Amino acid sequence: MDIKYMKRALTLAKKGIGYTNPNPLVGSVIVKNNKIIGEGYHKVYGGSHAEINAFNNATEDVTGATMYITLEPCSHYGKTPPCAYTIVKKKIKRVVIAMKDPNPLVAGKGIKILKSNGIEVVTGVLEKEAKKLNEIFIKYITTKLPFCILKTAMTLDGKIATHTGDSKWISNEGSRRIVHKLRHQVSGIMVGIGTVLADNPMLTTRLDNKKGINPTRIIVDTRASIPLNSNVLKDCKNIKTIIATTKLAETKNIKAIKEKGAEVIITPLKENLVDLPFLMHYLGDKKIDSILLEGGGALNYSALKENIVDKIISFIAPKIIGGIDAKSPVGGKGIAFMKNAILLKEMQVSTIGDNLMVEAYLRKEG
Amino acid sequence: MDIKYMKRALTLAKKGIGYTNPNPLVGSVIVKNNKIIGEGYHKVYGGSHAEINAFNNATEDVTGATMYITLEPCSHYGKTPPCAYTIVKKKIKRVVIAMKDPNPLVAGKGIKILKSNGIEVVTGVLEKEAKKLNEIFIKYITTKLPFCILKTAMTLDGKIATHTGDSKWISNEGSRRIVHKLRHQVSGIMVGIGTVLADNPMLTTRLDNKKGINPTRIIVDTRASIPLNSNVLKDCKNIKTIIATTKLAETKNIKAIKEKGAEVIITPLKENLVDLPFLMHYLGDKKIDSILLEGGGALNYSALKENIVDKIISFIAPKIIGGIDAKSPVGGKGIAFMKNAILLKEMQVSTIGDNLMVEAYLRKEG
Repeated sequence: MDIKYMKRALTLAKKGIGYTNPNPLVGSVIVKNNKIIGEGYHKVYGGSHAEINAFNNATEDVTGATMYITLEPCSHYGKTPPCAYTIVKKKIKRVVIAMKDPNPLVAGKGIKILKSNGIEVVTGVLEKEAKKLNEIFIKYITTKLPFCILKTAMTLDGKIATHTGDSKWISNEGSRRIVHKLRHQVSGIMVGIGTVLADNPMLTTRLDNKKGINPTRIIVDTRASIPLNSNVLKDCKNIKTIIATTKLAETKNIKAIKEKGAEVIITPLKENLVDLPFLMHYLGDKKIDSILLEGGGALNYSALKENIVDKIISFIAPKIIGGIDAKSPVGGKGIAFMKNAILLKEMQVSTIGDNLMVEAYLRKEG
Repeated sequence: MDIKYMKRALTLAKKGIGYTNPNPLVGSVIVKNNKIIGEGYHKVYGGSHAEINAFNNATEDVTGATMYITLEPCSHYGKTPPCAYTIVKKKIKRVVIAMKDPNPLVAGKGIKILKSNGIEVVTGVLEKEAKKLNEIFIKYITTKLPFCILKTAMTLDGKIATHTGDSKWISNEGSRRIVHKLRHQVSGIMVGIGTVLADNPMLTTRLDNKKGINPTRIIVDTRASIPLNSNVLKDCKNIKTIIATTKLAETKNIKAIKEKGAEVIITPLKENLVDLPFLMHYLGDKKIDSILLEGGGALNYSALKENIVDKIISFIAPKIIGGIDAKSPVGGKGIAFMKNAILLKEMQVSTIGDNLMVEAYLRKEG
């Protein structure tokens, strides 16, 4: 039964996707006499916590009930009073928690408050699922760096465009719809200047059924050579846009970009390019907890080499285009020998119509 | 119940994989009073048919029994007497058949013989599975051309080797084991001269638990420039080896290759290369019903463009190597626009340890 109710709590938590960053996704269910009497989730950054929403929605007296929460209740005074004390006050008898708070400042403290007030606490129910749901939050709260998802779409022969540069379309509509859901989910979207020049993308979120949240657009542009009439600079007064550049850029370019309404950040040079780890620290400080990296190949390779990527999502289409000069998802100089290949783990695959969606995580030390 | 026994017949049929080419894989089960009383399969090219083996292995009188056969019984006098008449003679009451004989010479004739002798006939039980099992036979018997499987192994960023040419190893041991099973299964293995020069492969079948059948090795080598000390020429007195070349080859090269024990076939020139469709006709005439095409990129592209490929099997490893100059599975000039991409169908994926195995068929007209 615990699993059934925790599943429901996880389903509720997912409703917050895209709205809670950089805070976690949390769902909660209150159960009494085998009946759900209250449900809630963390709806929006700064809004009330899942537990409080569940209490507010309760249809019966919650005294003696069991409460399911996907994340350990908070114990500190932040934007809201600590949930652990509210749970005690509400006379909940038993609390079932999917995962402990990964925030080192509070980990275990919420559980301690519950236990020392005589509440029975069970942890680890659907923990793996809860951790996956909050993989962005876990990375961000423990490192203050954004969780970076490298997204790519290729043919079954490993190409992201034909030799003439045509890439419309590699993946199917279902896959592209998922990409827009990903954009909705993250705080930042990042491309290289090459992609801006080749495709002139909007980098906005277009969802079918609701208004999507546009992530902050980040263009990696070592020489600030972005055309002033490019789509991303057109509406950067409405959608936050950051041009990451270096001292190799001309001052007049930087000035013109700023006048368009974009923010310009000048990073140190790293191998004559934008210093990506520096940029990640900067973005993390700006509360950008997650980035969707949408290539091209040169930036993807730099990002992987600089170890800023956490996850890869690759859409694979049942098409072949060939071409010795057609580009593949990761370019750059490349690794010289197989024994030094960048290793992935937990590779999983699902089908999106006639496309495959492959997800994998970077295998990192320690 | 029909499905259960037909499954058993299909399992038996698979035991013949690698030994029956260019004849089909066939399994048969005789059932009486809900009990299997006889089983058989087509063991080896020229050997007795599945039905006959099942009769020979029967432990009881088969009169009035039901017979399950993965393929319509034969009606013509070939290397063995027609099975349809034997079934009639043995007083089988009911025959369940997975698929009709695709051989246009005999299709439906076996069933007609059974029916006109008062035997109840059911067809189409696990037909899809039976057709997949005999995809090689179906192509070959209807076209006299080999069924061609393009096999490749790539990293998740679409590379078959690093920019230095290192490819040991992209895929894992399980995947490589499957490749050797594929080699055992087909009559021919084909590579381009580029692969011989880069990897100097043996192109033999190495199985763990039994002696594998070596397919005929076919090297596509427009100028007959294969080094005389290459591995494939070392033992070509024991393993049949064909060098497909053109008039661009020097006579002394051809002579030296022949002296090594390999067969040389000179095809017309097609765009200054070996004429692959011509080669397929030649190989089909030589009873090569199937070919495993193991690249590299240039030959793979030519083969796809010339429309000789029927199926693609792609192993994908959880590794990234990058490199703008690293090769991908299909090279050549390539298709210019996505709308003209070579389309695949029925893409299926399975996991081989931490690798993915993607299988797909070429979408062909008519």
